[in-house]
Order: sequence, then C-alpha cells, then structure tokens
Amino acid sequence: MMSEDQASNRMWGGRFASGPDAVMEAINASIGFDRKLYAQDIRGSLAHAAMLAKTGIISAEDEKKIVHGLNTILSEIEAGKFTFSAQLEDIHMNVEARLAELIGPTAGRLHTARSRNDQVALDFRLWVKEELQRIDAALGGLIEAFLTRAEEHAASVMPGFTHLQSAQPVTFGHHMMAYVEMFGRDRSRVRDAIERLDESPIGVAALAGTGFPVDRHMTAEALGFREPTRNSIDTVSDRDFALEFMSISAICATHLSRLAEEIVIWSTPQFGFVRLSDSFSTGSSIMPQKKNPDAAELIRAKTGRINGDLIALLTVMKGLPLAYSKDMQEDKEAVFDAAETLDLMLAAMTGMVGDMEVNTTAMKKAAGAGFSTATDLADWLVREAGLPFREAHHVTGRAVALAEEKKCGLEKLALEDLQAINPAIHDGVFSVLSVGNSVKSRTSYGGTAPSEVRRQIRYWKKRLKRDATPAKKR
Amino acid sequence: MMSEDQASNRMWGGRFASGPDAVMEAINASIGFDRKLYAQDIRGSLAHAAMLAKTGIISAEDEKKIVHGLNTILSEIEAGKFTFSAQLEDIHMNVEARLAELIGPTAGRLHTARSRNDQVALDFRLWVKEELQRIDAALGGLIEAFLTRAEEHAASVMPGFTHLQSAQPVTFGHHMMAYVEMFGRDRSRVRDAIERLDESPIGVAALAGTGFPVDRHMTAEALGFREPTRNSIDTVSDRDFALEFMSISAICATHLSRLAEEIVIWSTPQFGFVRLSDSFSTGSSIMPQKKNPDAAELIRAKTGRINGDLIALLTVMKGLPLAYSKDMQEDKEAVFDAAETLDLMLAAMTGMVGDMEVNTTAMKKAAGAGFSTATDLADWLVREAGLPFREAHHVTGRAVALAEEKKCGLEKLALEDLQAINPAIHDGVFSVLSVGNSVKSRTSYGGTAPSEVRRQIRYWKKRLKRDATPAKKR
Amino acid sequence: MMSEDQASNRMWGGRFASGPDAVMEAINASIGFDRKLYAQDIRGSLAHAAMLAKTGIISAEDEKKIVHGLNTILSEIEAGKFTFSAQLEDIHMNVEARLAELIGPTAGRLHTARSRNDQVALDFRLWVKEELQRIDAALGGLIEAFLTRAEEHAASVMPGFTHLQSAQPVTFGHHMMAYVEMFGRDRSRVRDAIERLDESPIGVAALAGTGFPVDRHMTAEALGFREPTRNSIDTVSDRDFALEFMSISAICATHLSRLAEEIVIWSTPQFGFVRLSDSFSTGSSIMPQKKNPDAAELIRAKTGRINGDLIALLTVMKGLPLAYSKDMQEDKEAVFDAAETLDLMLAAMTGMVGDMEVNTTAMKKAAGAGFSTATDLADWLVREAGLPFREAHHVTGRAVALAEEKKCGLEKLALEDLQAINPAIHDGVFSVLSVGNSVKSRTSYGGTAPSEVRRQIRYWKKRLKRDATPAKKR
Amino acid sequence: MMSEDQASNRMWGGRFASGPDAVMEAINASIGFDRKLYAQDIRGSLAHAAMLAKTGIISAEDEKKIVHGLNTILSEIEAGKFTFSAQLEDIHMNVEARLAELIGPTAGRLHTARSRNDQVALDFRLWVKEELQRIDAALGGLIEAFLTRAEEHAASVMPGFTHLQSAQPVTFGHHMMAYVEMFGRDRSRVRDAIERLDESPIGVAALAGTGFPVDRHMTAEALGFREPTRNSIDTVSDRDFALEFMSISAICATHLSRLAEEIVIWSTPQFGFVRLSDSFSTGSSIMPQKKNPDAAELIRAKTGRINGDLIALLTVMKGLPLAYSKDMQEDKEAVFDAAETLDLMLAAMTGMVGDMEVNTTAMKKAAGAGFSTATDLADWLVREAGLPFREAHHVTGRAVALAEEKKCGLEKLALEDLQAINPAIHDGVFSVLSVGNSVKSRTSYGGTAPSEVRRQIRYWKKRLKRDATPAKKR
Repeated sequence: MMSEDQASNRMWGGRFASGPDAVMEAINASIGFDRKLYAQDIRGSLAHAAMLAKTGIISAEDEKKIVHGLNTILSEIEAGKFTFSAQLEDIHMNVEARLAELIGPTAGRLHTARSRNDQVALDFRLWVKEELQRIDAALGGLIEAFLTRAEEHAASVMPGFTHLQSAQPVTFGHHMMAYVEMFGRDRSRVRDAIERLDESPIGVAALAGTGFPVDRHMTAEALGFREPTRNSIDTVSDRDFALEFMSISAICATHLSRLAEEIVIWSTPQFGFVRLSDSFSTGSSIMPQKKNPDAAELIRAKTGRINGDLIALLTVMKGLPLAYSKDMQEDKEAVFDAAETLDLMLAAMTGMVGDMEVNTTAMKKAAGAGFSTATDLADWLVREAGLPFREAHHVTGRAVALAEEKKCGLEKLALEDLQAINPAIHDGVFSVLSVGNSVKSRTSYGGTAPSEVRRQIRYWKKRLKRDATPAKKR
Repeated sequence: MMSEDQASNRMWGGRFASGPDAVMEAINASIGFDRKLYAQDIRGSLAHAAMLAKTGIISAEDEKKIVHGLNTILSEIEAGKFTFSAQLEDIHMNVEARLAELIGPTAGRLHTARSRNDQVALDFRLWVKEELQRIDAALGGLIEAFLTRAEEHAASVMPGFTHLQSAQPVTFGHHMMAYVEMFGRDRSRVRDAIERLDESPIGVAALAGTGFPVDRHMTAEALGFREPTRNSIDTVSDRDFALEFMSISAICATHLSRLAEEIVIWSTPQFGFVRLSDSFSTGSSIMPQKKNPDAAELIRAKTGRINGDLIALLTVMKGLPLAYSKDMQEDKEAVFDAAETLDLMLAAMTGMVGDMEVNTTAMKKAAGAGFSTATDLADWLVREAGLPFREAHHVTGRAVALAEEKKCGLEKLALEDLQAINPAIHDGVFSVLSVGNSVKSRTSYGGTAPSEVRRQIRYWKKRLKRDATPAKKR
Repeated sequence: MMSEDQASNRMWGGRFASGPDAVMEAINASIGFDRKLYAQDIRGSLAHAAMLAKTGIISAEDEKKIVHGLNTILSEIEAGKFTFSAQLEDIHMNVEARLAELIGPTAGRLHTARSRNDQVALDFRLWVKEELQRIDAALGGLIEAFLTRAEEHAASVMPGFTHLQSAQPVTFGHHMMAYVEMFGRDRSRVRDAIERLDESPIGVAALAGTGFPVDRHMTAEALGFREPTRNSIDTVSDRDFALEFMSISAICATHLSRLAEEIVIWSTPQFGFVRLSDSFSTGSSIMPQKKNPDAAELIRAKTGRINGDLIALLTVMKGLPLAYSKDMQEDKEAVFDAAETLDLMLAAMTGMVGDMEVNTTAMKKAAGAGFSTATDLADWLVREAGLPFREAHHVTGRAVALAEEKKCGLEKLALEDLQAINPAIHDGVFSVLSVGNSVKSRTSYGGTAPSEVRRQIRYWKKRLKRDATPAKKR
Repeated sequence: MMSEDQASNRMWGGRFASGPDAVMEAINASIGFDRKLYAQDIRGSLAHAAMLAKTGIISAEDEKKIVHGLNTILSEIEAGKFTFSAQLEDIHMNVEARLAELIGPTAGRLHTARSRNDQVALDFRLWVKEELQRIDAALGGLIEAFLTRAEEHAASVMPGFTHLQSAQPVTFGHHMMAYVEMFGRDRSRVRDAIERLDESPIGVAALAGTGFPVDRHMTAEALGFREPTRNSIDTVSDRDFALEFMSISAICATHLSRLAEEIVIWSTPQFGFVRLSDSFSTGSSIMPQKKNPDAAELIRAKTGRINGDLIALLTVMKGLPLAYSKDMQEDKEAVFDAAETLDLMLAAMTGMVGDMEVNTTAMKKAAGAGFSTATDLADWLVREAGLPFREAHHVTGRAVALAEEKKCGLEKLALEDLQAINPAIHDGVFSVLSVGNSVKSRTSYGGTAPSEVRRQIRYWKKRLKRDATPAKKR
C-alpha cells in the first residue's frame, strides 16, 4: 500500500514534495521578482514617514527612528547583506519585518494610513517611470548614432527598396534618417507616457482613502510626481502605466526589428552593403571570413518577447473587477522582462549602428542596377519634354527594353538611340539618368537629395539638444 | 486518367477553380476593404491637384477637369452607383480608371509627383485620424454618462472589493468615478496620438521624394495636417499611427471589459446590485424574470478581438525592411475591425451605464456584511485611543471574533463588550462603525467620502467642458 | 438648446442614430456571419428530426413536414432567395422562423430536446471539421508540389544557409523536402484534431441534458461523428476544437511565412535564385524587368492575422465560467477569418512553388562562394588523413586563408600548396572540395546527398498515397 | 569636455559600462538559461559517443575517456561544483570546454559528425518531451482529483449557469466531470504531441548531414526516440515541438482559468458555494473570517503569461529563413517559462480542487431560485400533457408569472392554480418541479442525472487506468 507521503509526493511532484504549502508559496510569493523594487519601496516609505510626521500623525521621534531604520535596510540590501524571505511573500513585508527587528513596534506606525495596495502601486509606478526615463536617454543615444552615420553618408547612394526590389536610388544618410523619425516618435510616446503616469498613488490606502489627515500633495511632491491621483479605487486597480509602457516598447521593438532584418540582409555576401564589427558578430574557427550577424538576429527575435509580454498583461487585466485582485501580481515580471529586453536591444543596436562598416561601392553599384532611374526618365519627359504622362511612361518602357537588350544602364544609351524612340529627347536627359543625379534631383521637402537630408539632420540635431533636458522638466 | 482540368481543380479547390489568376486576385486585391477609404482618397487627390496647379506643374484647366471628375466620382460612390472592380485591385486604381473614363488622358496628370505608396499612406492616416476623433467624442459621451450616475450616487454605499471579497465600504459614485479616470486616460492617449500622427505624407512619391517643385506644406494645410512629414522613406514605410491606434484601443477595451465583468457579476441574483434595461439584455420566453447581460458579455469578449488585431499588425510589421512591402496591405482590415469593434463597445457601454437600474439597498446591505468596517475600528483605536498599531489590530481582531460569535455587525456590539476588550474604547467609536460613517470619514484626497467624490465630479465636469473643443485645436 | 433627438444622436453617433435598439442589434446579432453555417444547421436539424421520429418523440408525419420544410429552406438559401433578418439574430432563428412560415406550428416540434446552445455547438463543430478536411487536402496538394520540384532538383546544388550566410552546400531538392516535413507535421496535427473533435454535441439541450428519450448515438452516426460527447455542460461550453484549429493554423502559417520570406529574398537581383511567374508577381509599367513578389509578401504578412485570430479567441475564452456565456459568440468570426486566410495562403503557395523558375546556375555559383566546403576539408582531414580534430580545424583555417589570399576557391588550390600546409594531404582531397562532391558525400540518414534526397522523396510519395484516403476513415 | 570613457558610459548606460563586449555578451550568451539543459546535453553526448565508437569513427578507448569525463561533469553540475561561464556562451561549449580540461584533446573527437545546431535541437527536444510527460502525469493527477469530488457529489444539486445566471439545475459532480472532459482532451493533445516529436535530431550535423558513417537509428534508440528525423535542414530549423507544446499549454491554461474564475466567484459571500482551505487562500489579520482566493486568482492570471509565451515564439519563428538563425535562441526562455508556469498552475489547482469545502446547502438553495425548473415544466407539458410546443411555453410563462407574484417556487404552486392556467395539468407535474427531480430526469447520454454522472465517472476511471501506462508505450 502507498504511504500518505508517497501519495502526496505523487500528487505534487518532486518540486512540491512538501505538499500544499510548497505549492502555495511557489505560486503566491513575489519576493523572487519584486525585490527589484527595494529602492522605490524604501524611498516611498521615507516620503510617507516624513508626511506622517509633518501632519502630526506620528511623532518626530518616531519618524527619526523609522528613517534611520529604513536607511539601514537600504544599506544592507545594497551591500548584499539582506536576507530575503519567501515566507514574508513580498518586498513590502520583507522590509517591514526587518524594520520591526531594527526599531521595534514603532515600525508599525509607518503603516498608518497606507496599505500594501497603494504601496505596490507606488513602487511599481516609480520603477516604470524611471525605466521610461532610461529608455528616453537610450533613444537619445541611438538617434545620435544615426545622425553621425547620416552625416557621413548624406550623399552616399544606395538602392531604395520596395518589395525588397531596388526601386529608386536614395542615400544611405536618408535611410538612416528614416530610423531617426521612427525612434523620434518612440521617444515622444515615452515622454507622453511619463507625463500621463506622473501622479502619486501613495495615501489612498487599501482602496477607499483614509480618515487620517494625510497630505498626499506633500508625498507627491517629495517623490517627484506632478500631483496625487484623484480616485482611490482607480489608483489601486490601475495598471495603465504598465500597459502603455509595454505597447510603446512593442512599437519601438518593431522599429528595431526592421533595421535588424535589413542588417541581416545587407550582411549577406549577395548584398554586401555593410560589414559588422567583430563586437557584434560571431565567426567560425575554420572560415575566418565568415561573420554571422548574431546581435542583429537576436534583436529581431526579441521583438517577439516584448509582444508576448504585452499580450500577457493585456490578458491578465482583461475582465478584472475592481479594485485589487491578486491577478495583478502578474504585472511585474512581464514589465521587468520587457524593460530588460528593450534596454539590451537599444544598447546593442546603438553599438552596431555606430561601428558597422558601410560599403558605399557595393551600395552604389546596386543602386544603378535594374534601371532604377526609369522613373526619373519618365518624370523628365513630362517635365522637360512636355510629354503627356501616359506617353512618357510608354517611351520610358521602350528605353528600358533597349537598355536591357544592350545590357547597359539607361545612362549608357546613346542620345540618337533615345531620340529614335522619341525625338523630343535632348542631351539634358543625361542629367537625370545617373543615380547620383537622380538622388540630387529629389529636393522636395523630406526627399532624398543630400541637401534635403542635411536639412533633416540639422533639424534633428536641434531637436536632440532641446530634448536633452530631462523629459519631466520640459 | 485525370484530365488537366481536373488536376488544376484539385490543386486549387473549388474556390479557385479558374486557376492561378483567381488565387492571385483573391490574395492581392484590396478593393474589398480599402473602398472604405474612398472619401479620403478623393479628398487627397483634390488637395494634390490644387497644389499641382498652384505650383504650375499642371495647368489651371487640367485642375478644373480633374476636380470636376473627382467630384463626379464622389457622388457616384455615395449614391451607390460606382462599380468597384477587383481587377483594378485597390481604391486608388478604381478611382484613377474611372477618372480616365470621365476626363480622358488629363486624368494621368493627377499622378504627377505622387505614387500609390504616398497615396495609401495619406488615405489611411486620414482615416485613422478621423476615427481617433470619433473615439475622442465617444469617450466624452461615456464619461458624461458616468458623471451623471456618479452624481446621483455620490453617497450610495456599496462594498469596495478586493479579490472580489468585500473589503471596505465605498460609494457607487466613487466606483463610477474610477472609470472616469480610466476613460479620461484613454482620451488623453487618443489626443496624444492625433497630435503625433498629424503630419501629411502626400508628395513623397514612391519613396525618394520628387524632382517636381511640389509644395508639401500647402497640401498639408489643405488636408488639416500640422505639417508635412520630414523623411520620404519613413513616410511610406511608417504604420506607427495604426499600431498606436490599436494599442490605445486595446487598453480602452480592457477598461470596458472590467466594467463589463462587474456588470455580469452585479446582475446575478446572488449580487443583485444592478438590473439592466431590456435594451441591453435578453430574456427567456418562459422565464420572464430572467435577464441575460448579453451586451456586457459581448463587450467583455470583444476585448479579445482588439488584442488580436493589435498582435496581427505587430506581427506583420516585425522585421519588415524599408520602404514599402506588400505585407503592409494587411494593415487595413485589422484597423477597420478594431475601430468598428471599439465604436460599438463604447456605444453599448454608454447605453448600459446610462440606463441600468442601481439597487442601492442590496449594495448597502452587502457593504455592511463581513465586518467591513474593521479597519475603521483599527484606525480609530490608533487615532483616537492612541493605541500602538499592532495593539489596535489585535483589539480589532478580538472585536470581530466577538461579533462573529454574536452573529451581529461590529456596530451592534455593546459598548461594554468593546470596553471589555479594551477599556480605552469610548462611545465615539460608533461614529466609525457604520458603513455610512466609514464612507464619510474617508476624506483624504481622492477618497470615497461623498464630499470628496463630489469634488472629483466637479473637476471632471470642468475638464469635460475644456475638452469639448476638438482635440486638434487645443 | 439641444433637442432630445440631437442629444441621443450625439450619444450614439450617426451609426446608431436610432438609439439603444440599433446598438443592441449591432452588437448582439450574429446573422451577419453565422449564416455561413446554414448548411450545417439544416443538416443537423434533419438528423435531429429523424431521431425524434425514430424514438417516437415526434410523429412520422411531423418529421415528413419538417424534412420538406428544411429542404425548401436549403434550396432557397442556395438559390440566393432567402431573406436573412438581423432581428431574428442568428442562423438558427432565421431558419426556425422560416420553417414556421412554411409548415406552421409543427416547426416548433423540431426544437424538442434541443436548444440553441447545442445547436450552435453542433453547427460550428461540423464546420470546423469540414474546414480541417479541406486543409488536409490542400496540404496534400502542397506536399505534392514540393515533391515534384524536389524530384526535378534532387541534385541541384544551392547554398545551405545559417544566419542567412552560406554555410555548406545542399541541394534545392533537399531544401524543398524540408518543407515537406513541416507540412507533413501540419497535416498530422490536422488529422489528430479531426479525431479529437469527432464527437457529436447534439442532444445535450441547454446544458443539462434532457428528459426526452433521445438517441444521441443515432444522431452522431447520421452526422458522421464517431460518438456523442460525454458531458452536457462541457459540450455547450467547449470551444477547444476552434482553439486547436487556430493553433494548428498558426503553426502552419509560420511555415508558409518562412518559405515566403525565402522567396522574397531569393527573388532579389542580388540573390536571383528564383524567378516568379507573372501569375504571382506584379510588375511596373515602366520597368518591365521588375517582378515584385506580392503573393509571397502577402503570405508572409497573413501569418500575423492568424496569430491575431488565435490570441483573440484565447482571450475570449480566458476565465469564462461554465456553461454558456454570450462571449462565445465571438468564436466564429475569428475562426472563419483564419480559415479563409489559411485556405488562400495554401492555394497561393502551392501555385508559386509549382511555377517558379529555379536558376540553378545562380544557386550553384552562390553555393561555391565563401569557402563553403571548408568543413568538408576538415572532416576529410580527420577521416582520411587521421588528423586530430583540433589540428584538422587549424589546417583548414590556413587553407581558407591561403585561398582568400589567392582569391580562388578551395578546390582551385594546388596540391603542393595544400601539402605545404600539411604533408598528409594527398590528391584524394579534391574529391570533397567541390560543392557537387560535398553534397554527394552527405549520405547520412536525412542528409543532403542526392541519393538520400531521392530516398526521402520515395518515402513521402508512399505516405502521400496512404494519406489520400480521407482522414476520418484511416 | 567629455572624456571618451564618459562618452562610452553615456552611450552604453551603467549596465554596459564596459562597452560593446558587455552588450554582446549580455545579448548573445545563453548559458544563463540553457544550463537547464545540462542533463539532456550530457545524455545526448553519451549516446553520440557510443555510436561513434560502435561505427568505428572513434576508438573504444576514446569513448571510454569521453564517457568518464562526461559523467564527471554531470556529477560536478549536480553537486553544484561546476562553474558556468558566460564567455563560453552556452551549455554545449561549457561542457565541451570542461571535457577538454578533464580528458585533453580527445574531447574534440566527441564533436565529430555533429554541430551545435543538431546538439541544441536534440537537447531542447528531449527537454520538451520530458516536460510533456510531466504534464501528462500532472493531468492524470488533476483528473483523479475531479473524479474524487465528482463521486462525492454525483447527486449534489447546484445551479447550472448560462450568462452567469442560473438556468437549470445540474449536479456539482456533473460540473466537475465537465472539467474532466477538458483536461482529458488536454492530455490527449499532450500524447499526440509526444508522438509527433518523437524523432531524433542528432547526427544531422550543421544542416546538411555528414559524410561520416554515422548510425542515426542507433542514437535514436539509445535516447528513447521512435526513429531519426528524415531531413537534415528541417531538423535544425524546426521548432514545431516547442510551438505545439505552447499551444497545448495555452489551451490547458484556458481551462484552468475558467475553473479559477468560478472558484473566485463561488468563494464570494454572495455565492458561498465553496470555502477554500487555508492552504490556498490568504486572510487578514483583523478580519479573521476573510478568505482571499489568491491561488485561484493567480491561476487565472497566469494564463496571460502562457498566451504571451506562445505569441513570443510564434513571432520569433515568423518569416525565418532556413536553416538555423540565431533568432531561434529565443525559443528556450519562452518554453521554460510556460512549462514552469503550467506545472505550478496544475499543482495548485489539483490542491485546491482536492481540499475545497463544498457548501451543498447554499448550492441547492441557489439551484431552486429563479424558477430554474421552468423548462422542465414546459417539457413535461409537451411530453405528458401532449401540448404543442408553443402552447407549452406559453403556459409555463404564465405559471412562472404566478409564482413570481406569489413569491414562491414553481413547485409550491397549488395544483388548482396550475390547472386554472391549463386544465390538462395533473399532479404528476410535481415530479419535475423540484430541483432534485429535475436533475434526476436528465438521463440522456451525457446528461446531469446522477446515474448518468456515475456512468461518466466509471468511464473515466477505466480510461485513467488505461492511460496510467506511460504515454510513449501505449
């Protein structure tokens, strides 16, 4: 016959051999990940204690003890000397229990007019805000890296692709500036999000507010928030700031994945547009010429992870009744994972953009292939030779066919050959048939002409300067 | 032996019996859904034609013809007299082909200095902008509905829940105002998104800009955009505005799903907090008392659809090389579906909130159950009787145990019984033990005290007025 | 002042101008999409009627009337003469109402011992089963197309890629066979799913079973199911078959997207491995040589859509209490969309694989670049010259360096040059240095040697034959 | 001026202060998570070594050394004495480097005829297979827990819900058995997946197979696989087994979330159907009667996480060219997270189901409310009194209205009152009006009648026994 222990073992599996308690601790305790919030937790408690003293809810003496105790705990944690306990479940209880050890029953007074619900809302919001500020700075660094490359290559010709087929010549600088626009939008989303979450949750207590004469404006200010939140129920049930952080991250990661894909393709021997530095690629012991674009591939892949984190939290929050449900404990790991992932992707991409070697010769050669100035010819026929649109297209098609037959570029066709197709063509036409001239001619606002690219660069340099001021103090 | 036709039939299946062409048309043509953009397409063409004429790229005469032709097409479509053709693939080609029928070769001149790439970017961006404006207005209406109910019920007591267990009494008005905060944040996200997308794509042509002397500021202004986009490659490859629209929608839908879940639970006979009107519920022919909360369930469910649309587009855009790839044609159906879904969810929720019957008696009764004022007692002991925190908790626990034993509420305990537990208790304690008094005492900023709820209502009424001005013109 | 009508207009928006009823109808009615189930609905009703008559629950006469009425309705729908009504909400009520018109009160008897809950569960399950059978057949067709190309190209050398860098030569036939394995797994998942869902829901009534003496085994058999479901509550609340269909579809779509990406890359002038037929690409009026791989791009993109549909339904079903909730009405559109999308992707890919032109010259040339036989050399040194592993790698690295210096392939190095690096090398080495020989040498089970590829083809031809028998009757 | 170090610091952020190398190591190294595969890695190497010796590719002596070395490493890791190095990137290189330290250059021979590509494919596939076997067992345990409760409560009446409104009485045992069906389907999916992935990847080398005379059938058998994989390119690029594992997990998690939601609702004082044990709930220090269903809420929430993991990997694999790309390194963390999460959810649910206290009184009372036997009355009128369907519904509606007016249940109406509504009613009617009789009457196959529930239990007990044999050896 099976012993009770064996039966319990079978039901719970090896990992949970000790029975229900082990399972519950494993599913319930959050200290394994929320310890990451220790600095925010202690900062929040210091602000709360100061407010309690100022409003007379606790004595100045008590405050002093509490402050001393909290600072001791902070030092212990940062020195790696703090023992976290899963039985104490979370960071709040771990700190609280240690405070009681250090300063005795006074520790309890710190919890006047607050609860774990507003405390975790505060800690997590502070953390997300700081992460957004980190991303803001990282985006600034990445944009700077693009500007440097764009300036270098404002006039370097490369093929502009549609359907991954060469369509019209553009400049590499212009292509880099396309990414500046994307990451510029990401940055603006980050700043809007900071602005939106900039309300202090502390002081709403469990969910209903409190009867103690707390001063929530004081704690809001002390913690660097614009103002306190306006509704206590919303305050403890709201995770919008986390969802918004994740959707911003997902869009930003999508941008990174697009450039990563381009780098992977550009690094093939077939394209040969860029050569990654050894720092961001791996080689082969027996094929020393080989460079695998590992970092780019990983950036491309990690987009999936952030999308997954976003979906995870959206699913958690779907249909959750107010105010606090334990489901919301699942918010943190998704956010921490997305944050760590995005930080890493941004750092790696900034490095790669900064040090990849650009093969302008290969790019220029590719830009000229495939009769990529055919639209320039058609436009010239409309503009200079006064041909109707449809006729211009027809003439261009014939010229391309001829060039294909002669296995040469459009710009290598003889004038008489072109005139045989349409007599209105004169030798001014050659000014648009080379890729260099094609690119130079695209001077419309936002176009790829080097002069226009340089204008864009100047705009962004100015904007980068303006945005160097921390997001909050704009 | 199988005939060739049978073989082809087998390969393509009944739907694609006519072979490759039917398959390609089915996968490639977008007119089935992008016809929705007809108004934006024609509006964009009108602005482009005016600019071409103003800058001398086309003649005033040509412009006149084009304008007349486009207006004719607009009338035809709106009168249901326009025949859309799948062979012409998309809305742009359908309009273009009809224009050529109507005004002859001049139609071709309209396509000077533009391409389908910037044309679709324009049409779609205009549509998304208008949808965001519709949602902005719908959110205003929903917030108004909450304010009305909150005002009515600023003092109606209900249980405040954590873990779906009654925790502390709050007011129904306060609970309604929690949703005002959520939808207020949604609205602010909508407005930020409008601001961010408010740049005109038209005039960047295929991807490189153009050599024609276009005036992109003029078209931007004519179409109500703040300014033209700055980079032509980014302009045709960017779908951030669609991704941002969808992530905003997903967060907003999540809010709606939370209230929907509450309504489903509140409508059970067990809770009985609200009774839905016949408009938003369905009944049973043989159980006339039955009310199924169909609309609430569908709102809850439709959140999944919007999350799915978001993931669909994030997946499409992942790793897509610049500038335009045909993959991006998959952007529209996801956005249209999310938009239609969110519009419907907002309308249904506004209706339900407006006309649901609130059973204040049932709510109040539930609020009093479960010794929900225990924390009020503990707080009172700290505040008024000067007990240390831990002691206050201990005394409260004993009082609750006593009440449970006597099967009565805390407020029904005799003073002497309470004093037997702790002599410091005096009859002032009863002022906090009833749910009504509990609620009244929570006067901290953002708390559930009716006075505080009314302050929140005043704040939001003012803000609603301020936000009545269309988002763009703030 | 605003009139009440204007106010209502504002609240509901133009679309819902008529107020709550229009909103409720729009959110509640499913006839817009569930009409797709008409054939399944009528088939189910016919089987139910036959069973009711057989068990004596209704009379033979009533059955006759019902059968006649249902067949009439079927003809009407298929002839396009049936008027669907949104007020009658769904396909079941539309059919039911028409039946009553046609045969009077007898129509009501059909609804003995069943409800809309088991009726929709039946209709939908039947539809999904048939769709799985369609996909099973389409996968068979696709695999056949790969086998044809693989047979043609069992010995055509191309680069085998890792990190999109050429790593070792393989054959195009072998690469095609990799996809046969993927789609073979998809097909096996499809068949397992059919097996699993093959239980008949009809006869469980609303959720609790029925007191009528129904014979659920009889209806199960009549409708082609293996057996009836075992638990009435599960039967009406289960949508596993839809979730499993969607996860299978998502994995299958992922396979399609991988080949689509390869086709996009292979079609670039830089790679030039394949040339798509006009059927599956689009061109440019002025660049006749251009071929945009539109169908491949759309296949790649549509993967996002199916992932989105999967997430949508997973989100809908999350946390849904038993038995039936209206949320489940959201199941159909997601499934219909995924099904239609996958059908189209499979048809388009089958077409593309069948008619794309393979440039074996370009492939072979690329296969030889990058010293792709370096590992063959190292293996040869271990195997034939008896060098220790590390030494073999070292020697190979030096040979590659020399070839790079001489700008030639490894196979073009002189024997004396190789012997200068390591004297153990003899002229047998050249048998492994050409890409053709490299490929021929990989004769391990599952390897790329043409002989091995042909063995794989024979295996799959046999398996395809075996699987031609309909999935159900295996 | 900024020093170079400061600049680098700014670009890389504190975390990556040491520059590109730190970033690359952080993004590239997988040892942080793939160390979890150490046992599989060593097992695979042992099988490979035995095969190499058997086929004469290495000597028996070398094999002996290798086996000894690998066993030493296994002991070191299990004793916690192994130092993992991030510079050695992954588990394979960590083991390989240590083996070289232990046995010198012979270590290199182990890598004959294999590469990291097939090695990681093997390790990961083995791990997933074992995890599926763990889940198979856990599902068996959970089903057993349900059977126990179902047997206890085969006749305990509770309300059967639709729309969370009481619809018809069912038994709690029947409700439990609905979950048995769900988890039974999950288990069958798990077993199909094991069957499908049961092919050995080892021996396909980098991607092309090998020229060494390996015996892949021998390694397959040694490692417990049915057979070797058939195509070397597919083998290194395939992650279907991971995707299938995750989609199975997502469906299973969805089932768990549904029961979790029910437990949350059932635990409210308003429902009061179940009372969780202290093991799976948390309380309040001052409200001792309170029980928060934390474990149920966390199970509900963790569904989101698994959905997220699924989407993450689907996104990673989308559009990935063959054969191996570094993107695929992102496969493991998603799978490990989903596996750990699902294991925990299953364990916690098994515990909760096993020890929750069922309040049959509250359930029975709720089952009788809301005239839940109205459909029984209507069915009785059709069946026993021969009324036409529509008439039966009409009569029932009037009876319900009367009962509502009299504020009593249907079964409390006087016979004469019923006969006043319709004279065909006789006192046999009361046999169906009580919830107990209602339930007993639902004897259709799969119905809620206790006799039928017990039949289902017997079926599942037999099946559980049959399935006790390990999945593989069926």
